[in-house]
Amino acid sequence: MPSLAELLTHAREVSSRDQCAALDRDDPLGALRAQFVAPPGVIYLDGNSLGQLPVKTATRIAQVVTGEWGQGLIRSWNDAGWMDLPTQVGNQIARLVGARPGELIVCDSTSVNLFKVLRAALALWLAANPAKPQDTAAPVVVSQPGNFPTDLYIAQSAAADLGFELELCDAAQLEPRLADPNAAPVAALVLTQVDYRTGAIHDLGHLSACAHAAGAFAIWDLAHSAGAIPVDLHQADADFAVGCGYKFLNGGPGAPAFVWAHPRWVDKTRQPLAGWLGHTAPFDFAAAYSPAQGIRHYLGGTPPILSLTALECGVQTVLAAEPLGGMAALHAKAQGLTELFIRLVARHCDRHELELLSPTDPAQRGCQVSLRSPLDGYAIVQALIERGVIGDFRASDVLRFGFSPLPLRYVDVWDAVMELARVLDSGTWRDPRYAQRHAVT
Amino acid sequence: MPSLAELLTHAREVSSRDQCAALDRDDPLGALRAQFVAPPGVIYLDGNSLGQLPVKTATRIAQVVTGEWGQGLIRSWNDAGWMDLPTQVGNQIARLVGARPGELIVCDSTSVNLFKVLRAALALWLAANPAKPQDTAAPVVVSQPGNFPTDLYIAQSAAADLGFELELCDAAQLEPRLADPNAAPVAALVLTQVDYRTGAIHDLGHLSACAHAAGAFAIWDLAHSAGAIPVDLHQADADFAVGCGYKFLNGGPGAPAFVWAHPRWVDKTRQPLAGWLGHTAPFDFAAAYSPAQGIRHYLGGTPPILSLTALECGVQTVLAAEPLGGMAALHAKAQGLTELFIRLVARHCDRHELELLSPTDPAQRGCQVSLRSPLDGYAIVQALIERGVIGDFRASDVLRFGFSPLPLRYVDVWDAVMELARVLDSGTWRDPRYAQRHAVT
Repeated sequence: MPSLAELLTHAREVSSRDQCAALDRDDPLGALRAQFVAPPGVIYLDGNSLGQLPVKTATRIAQVVTGEWGQGLIRSWNDAGWMDLPTQVGNQIARLVGARPGELIVCDSTSVNLFKVLRAALALWLAANPAKPQDTAAPVVVSQPGNFPTDLYIAQSAAADLGFELELCDAAQLEPRLADPNAAPVAALVLTQVDYRTGAIHDLGHLSACAHAAGAFAIWDLAHSAGAIPVDLHQADADFAVGCGYKFLNGGPGAPAFVWAHPRWVDKTRQPLAGWLGHTAPFDFAAAYSPAQGIRHYLGGTPPILSLTALECGVQTVLAAEPLGGMAALHAKAQGLTELFIRLVARHCDRHELELLSPTDPAQRGCQVSLRSPLDGYAIVQALIERGVIGDFRASDVLRFGFSPLPLRYVDVWDAVMELARVLDSGTWRDPRYAQRHAVT
Repeated sequence: MPSLAELLTHAREVSSRDQCAALDRDDPLGALRAQFVAPPGVIYLDGNSLGQLPVKTATRIAQVVTGEWGQGLIRSWNDAGWMDLPTQVGNQIARLVGARPGELIVCDSTSVNLFKVLRAALALWLAANPAKPQDTAAPVVVSQPGNFPTDLYIAQSAAADLGFELELCDAAQLEPRLADPNAAPVAALVLTQVDYRTGAIHDLGHLSACAHAAGAFAIWDLAHSAGAIPVDLHQADADFAVGCGYKFLNGGPGAPAFVWAHPRWVDKTRQPLAGWLGHTAPFDFAAAYSPAQGIRHYLGGTPPILSLTALECGVQTVLAAEPLGGMAALHAKAQGLTELFIRLVARHCDRHELELLSPTDPAQRGCQVSLRSPLDGYAIVQALIERGVIGDFRASDVLRFGFSPLPLRYVDVWDAVMELARVLDSGTWRDPRYAQRHAVT
């Protein structure tokens, strides 16, 4: 097993495609690549937006559709274990983020889950901090302006529901803001651990401690963390977390999300989207709500079984790395890939004023590299996509490349950078058709 | 095309299986049965809980998984039209419930969608009815105690958010309650149109008018209506509606739900689960929320494409009846089936004190028949399931049989009742293993 230092050194020293191929031959995680369908002619650098299709997903979905639904019909809620899927898949994700069995459940979307935990946390805070007549400023929820928009919209809405305001601070200002005794009281810190634009990683443990010192809950969105970098929610002493199933967990387009609440809080909270499957006895059909114990009361409506099945297949592609070093090994490989990409871009695209938006320290980077360009980044990404190198563009000027460590090889990184250099050197991207906007990417 | 009166007369006169087979031969909707996978040896009377698998779903899902996701990857959000699926499937459901194109969208669960519309409606009501110092009673949301539990839990939670109380009135008391000038003001009437336990149909238009006369919004859950009975939201002058994809729309286990807002309200409302796909320009990644025009701002997170695809296949099985009379013809056939079931139960199970819980007037019944028994109804249903007749049990004492008019035949009704009579006459159901509770059915 190569150390992280060795991986980085190798990545920095590469000067030929053959050397990349040699790194791939020595890659102890290389065998896990066969878990994925790889479209011919494509180098896929967008697994941070939609993970690749695991080979076994199609077969498993077909079994669920044809056998469990088609033949088993309603009986499959018991006989095929559908009723337990939110917990069963949740327990598998729990292993990737340092949660314990029974603490994490799969349901709804990241947006909806964030609403639940934020409302739950703010209600707890209000109970512990009743308003006093001398209060001059409304208490706040703190986030950063670069958080993923849906998190900001939901935070704004959930905060307003209970009389809080949303306050945005740049990343560097978060710590002093939380420590400021003269500013409005902070009830919750809501952050996405890995920045979707830059890939910069927040220190989960340190910022959670800063939030706690301010009397605030630490609420984390693990959208670009789960399946990408090592996360230990308990070690970090986080309070609540949500995350996404369709990025590094390879759960398929629009896969359901997950939600976790620290066991010290979960049974003290009530979440506002109280649905029947969160009831302590759903099949009693009682008119009065009585929440289930533990994280199960964060369930609401009936879980989407087809999407949950695909998510389970995706999560298992990541769990397959457990005997090979797990998330630490996966992130180490991703650091090797991103470091190689950065070095090669610097060497082969140096005439084109690309700026590295991601942290230069590999340990500070999630599984992505973002570049900024004074040229039309959107058109450059479109020209690359047409040539089989799929990254994405994030307004206003970010070329974003994801490096999912399971399916990607070092030669893919080499080939992608050579293509980027050709597109830039040739000016191909200036063809007006590349500037035409689509809805996505 | 037989008239409803003829269908009912025939159903009432049947006294042999051969006569049922003759009705099936003459059934103009009979050819639509081939749209469904029919497990051998099963008579499925639970399509009101989980619709049967359409034949084409497995193929279509496989295309989406293997082709659109596996090969197209992130590009399929544009190239395969994934981004438009919530609207595209919504427009198809709209045709079944009297909504216009662009007014109805598929997303989230019924529970989550009910929370959105109820919060949106109550905020509108508050804006139009500001609190006055002389107000003595909190304004209320009215529902009935027999509404589906999730609707009550969500209504309670959404109402409490904005200072409303939930008031429950038996069905017969709804109209006088709404007309009572001395009771607390009513902001919204929230009902499931077809009662999940009894199958009784509320008069959508009349109760909406009563709500309006009281200054309240009429909010309808169409879970057991969409794809089951004719619904015309505009003719009924309803204000908001939600509904379920996995019952009579045959969308598969946990299929996403739908939401509709009357065009007179939709752009005046703000729903609390403001997610990025409800933003007017999601790919601008703006920090401030600006809702999309129309029902699209009821979208939140990324839509579950696999489940949406299955739902589209399911909805199309119902739309296939449009040239044959559409929802009116489907409900007419269901009335024929339920009438036959009731008559045959009365004739063949008359020794067992079964009580008809569903309305005796076929026009007042959705596509189900509920029986009450002084015996252990749960065990009776389990014994039937073991013999291939799948209905379900709803606490505390309801044997519920759904009659999805697309896949079911008159001979199925005959065979089901004969099996019920055998189970009751023989006392088979008294075997202790049938009393052991499962999670579902």
